[in-house]
Amino acid sequence: MPVAVYPGSFDPVTKGHVDIAERAAALFDKLIVAVYVSPPKRLMFSVEERVALLKEALSHLPNVRVEAFAGLTVDYAKKVKANVLVRGLRMSSDFEREFEMAQMNKRLAPDIELVCLMTRSGYEFVSSSLLKEICELGGCIDEFVPEDVAVAMKEKFSQNKR
Amino acid sequence: MPVAVYPGSFDPVTKGHVDIAERAAALFDKLIVAVYVSPPKRLMFSVEERVALLKEALSHLPNVRVEAFAGLTVDYAKKVKANVLVRGLRMSSDFEREFEMAQMNKRLAPDIELVCLMTRSGYEFVSSSLLKEICELGGCIDEFVPEDVAVAMKEKFSQNKR
Amino acid sequence: MPVAVYPGSFDPVTKGHVDIAERAAALFDKLIVAVYVSPPKRLMFSVEERVALLKEALSHLPNVRVEAFAGLTVDYAKKVKANVLVRGLRMSSDFEREFEMAQMNKRLAPDIELVCLMTRSGYEFVSSSLLKEICELGGCIDEFVPEDVAVAMKEKFSQNKR
Amino acid sequence: MPVAVYPGSFDPVTKGHVDIAERAAALFDKLIVAVYVSPPKRLMFSVEERVALLKEALSHLPNVRVEAFAGLTVDYAKKVKANVLVRGLRMSSDFEREFEMAQMNKRLAPDIELVCLMTRSGYEFVSSSLLKEICELGGCIDEFVPEDVAVAMKEKFSQNKR
Amino acid sequence: MPVAVYPGSFDPVTKGHVDIAERAAALFDKLIVAVYVSPPKRLMFSVEERVALLKEALSHLPNVRVEAFAGLTVDYAKKVKANVLVRGLRMSSDFEREFEMAQMNKRLAPDIELVCLMTRSGYEFVSSSLLKEICELGGCIDEFVPEDVAVAMKEKFSQNKR
Amino acid sequence: MPVAVYPGSFDPVTKGHVDIAERAAALFDKLIVAVYVSPPKRLMFSVEERVALLKEALSHLPNVRVEAFAGLTVDYAKKVKANVLVRGLRMSSDFEREFEMAQMNKRLAPDIELVCLMTRSGYEFVSSSLLKEICELGGCIDEFVPEDVAVAMKEKFSQNKR
Repeated sequence: MPVAVYPGSFDPVTKGHVDIAERAAALFDKLIVAVYVSPPKRLMFSVEERVALLKEALSHLPNVRVEAFAGLTVDYAKKVKANVLVRGLRMSSDFEREFEMAQMNKRLAPDIELVCLMTRSGYEFVSSSLLKEICELGGCIDEFVPEDVAVAMKEKFSQNKR
Repeated sequence: MPVAVYPGSFDPVTKGHVDIAERAAALFDKLIVAVYVSPPKRLMFSVEERVALLKEALSHLPNVRVEAFAGLTVDYAKKVKANVLVRGLRMSSDFEREFEMAQMNKRLAPDIELVCLMTRSGYEFVSSSLLKEICELGGCIDEFVPEDVAVAMKEKFSQNKR
Repeated sequence: MPVAVYPGSFDPVTKGHVDIAERAAALFDKLIVAVYVSPPKRLMFSVEERVALLKEALSHLPNVRVEAFAGLTVDYAKKVKANVLVRGLRMSSDFEREFEMAQMNKRLAPDIELVCLMTRSGYEFVSSSLLKEICELGGCIDEFVPEDVAVAMKEKFSQNKR
Repeated sequence: MPVAVYPGSFDPVTKGHVDIAERAAALFDKLIVAVYVSPPKRLMFSVEERVALLKEALSHLPNVRVEAFAGLTVDYAKKVKANVLVRGLRMSSDFEREFEMAQMNKRLAPDIELVCLMTRSGYEFVSSSLLKEICELGGCIDEFVPEDVAVAMKEKFSQNKR
Repeated sequence: MPVAVYPGSFDPVTKGHVDIAERAAALFDKLIVAVYVSPPKRLMFSVEERVALLKEALSHLPNVRVEAFAGLTVDYAKKVKANVLVRGLRMSSDFEREFEMAQMNKRLAPDIELVCLMTRSGYEFVSSSLLKEICELGGCIDEFVPEDVAVAMKEKFSQNKR
Repeated sequence: MPVAVYPGSFDPVTKGHVDIAERAAALFDKLIVAVYVSPPKRLMFSVEERVALLKEALSHLPNVRVEAFAGLTVDYAKKVKANVLVRGLRMSSDFEREFEMAQMNKRLAPDIELVCLMTRSGYEFVSSSLLKEICELGGCIDEFVPEDVAVAMKEKFSQNKR
């Protein structure tokens, strides 16, 4: 009975992430969306905020659980007894990074399988970092994120300006 | 209950194909390895031979069935009630071809999911066409194909020379 | 007053081609869509058919002319007094081919500029060759080509089968 | 009457940038070279210095204006009534970044067209960041930047050392 | 004492090939430029012609020998007691093909090293196949091939037309 | 008599680096592994530590010398009278960065040749930065680095935690 982990920073969750989560939830019995506590980059949202926004965005998917995690992704996967890691691929350069991680993970945890899903056409240019950049410069990102996330992003930026 | 189709020419099956099939068979309830009858390239083995070599190579996997198919891959998948297509990715250039096909298939058959597995390190340079080229030039390909396939390839080339 | 040439095989024209032509027609005073008579690949449509389908598909663009040409693209561009070549880019691998051609053309004809337009999201996976393959296998390509082209493609394939 | 914007950090302008500006100025009625005030990276030159060096380097092009801008590139383009964004492509990895931006911009501002020009052979390896690195390490960059820029870069680095 | 083999089809030799051969000849004690007798593509020149044109083009390099070979490249390398294979890289897509071959060759012949040299800027867009295409269409390729080769190519095409 | 320089940050040396050094040492009379004193990234090990770990890891190679250097790589190469720079290639994205550097170096120092060796299958996913990330998160990296390096990395991280 395959249990899958979909790990990421989700800072914040985009409609691209929601799409991948929906498709993974249809493939596997149980999907854990795992929010990496402290990725090596500057964050806009705290881990609690990121988890809350994800829970809201994925509340329509009954077999999905959202959780924060620290440490190695494969160690977390073992702890929750998952045998699958899910990743979304958007472009060739994504592919190389994922390939590198996939090979390394295979050596660190041979029993865990990496499964890549291709980003849906129309979302392949949507990334959290690009959306944050656009939002910071006053652009409208409503179309690319769940409604709650759009509200939260605007709030953050108006706080920062004060 | 996910049923997956792993389509290809398999002319002939390599250890890289076997690796992907083993991993897909562990992920899904049922895996159909689907041999494309007439791909747009010159073939070494007839469709019957390709199916027979695959059946032998995958006989250790109880939930795997090998079948020939013609027509569109997504139409075949619908016919056998599969909801997943499995593909192995070896390199960036593979990725772009697969991405193109994935997007097209998503439009032709929105309910069928493409799942990509990354080729295991040590097999990322193994392709049927490269192996045929090497075998034709007298190189040894035993390490990269199941035993029966190695025998069959050598037979073919010795026939051709006669 | 820039005159642009948009060269290609157009075997047959797709909605992706139409999109690029529309955008180029908005950028330049005059656009000549130039149909390469005998590209080094097997063709589905004769040059007369390809020109006729393009004329129909682009009839809403008053500053566009469709013409067949033979010989080097840059020689044709010089003959029609164009100073711009237009190309659509879909992916990284397209990019490398175009870059190679661009550099060579720059040496053969330094006064002619290559202008690349990015394929619109939703068409980046549409190519004439993929559509022909799908149509041949009985798939529906109506969504990706102008109406006349869909009719013409089906006719061709039903002829071939007889 | 197409007005084009060529946006960038230009920290500092290189001969590669000058080449793209010359070619864009020949294609469009009016070209605005737009200097991004505060890109998300450490800068060597102030925005006033970057504008001044560009003005000097492009003084031979009568239909070119140099301006600083803040905010989203597409919002700036709308403000100056431009309908074209110009970008130079140097490599495959450039391409992917530009493709992502192009698709996003198309959604944010459907009426503005992205036009990519291929970097001239011999400049495809020249980037502002590489030149700054070389100059800092004592290498000679005179061949790759306008004369005034070479002088300004050496001055900066000798100031930093004091 | 390293002996290197630089294998290829050389149909015909270009200035890009000459550049790589000159650089490899400076690196290794002895360089054998090895002309592959029957590559899997349509050839313009016979193996005798290709060898003769290469000998002429490389006559200024005293430590270079030109030879035809059949069979696997690594088997030929072993026969001539070479421990190095030399390849020129022009682009990312070249890289992937070479990487695949390199990994396979390493398995077939662990003692032979693949050494890649980067094509000189200004030649990265020059390939034999592109030059043949241009020459066939009446374009001038004199700048990209040794003088004798330009003469030979024009002769071939005028013969074909007769 | 070719002398080669293999430059890098080596923060710390991996088995992938050792593999490239061994192969380069077999190709050239003398190999200098040159440790860049202050690369533009946060370092784990001081230059003295990086040199010491490399010396230990390469002590079995009699014709190899390990040295620290500052300034431009090509200037260092000239100073030590080397005519070859050695680099390991792992992936397409590596290739583009190296190509850019190679072209620039060729202009800065036309007499120094860049030689690229392809990373051995099984190490293509090993990079110093990935290993540091894994080690920091408590993963085991023993398999990918020399024994002394594994010890040193664990010590560093346990110091950091105190």
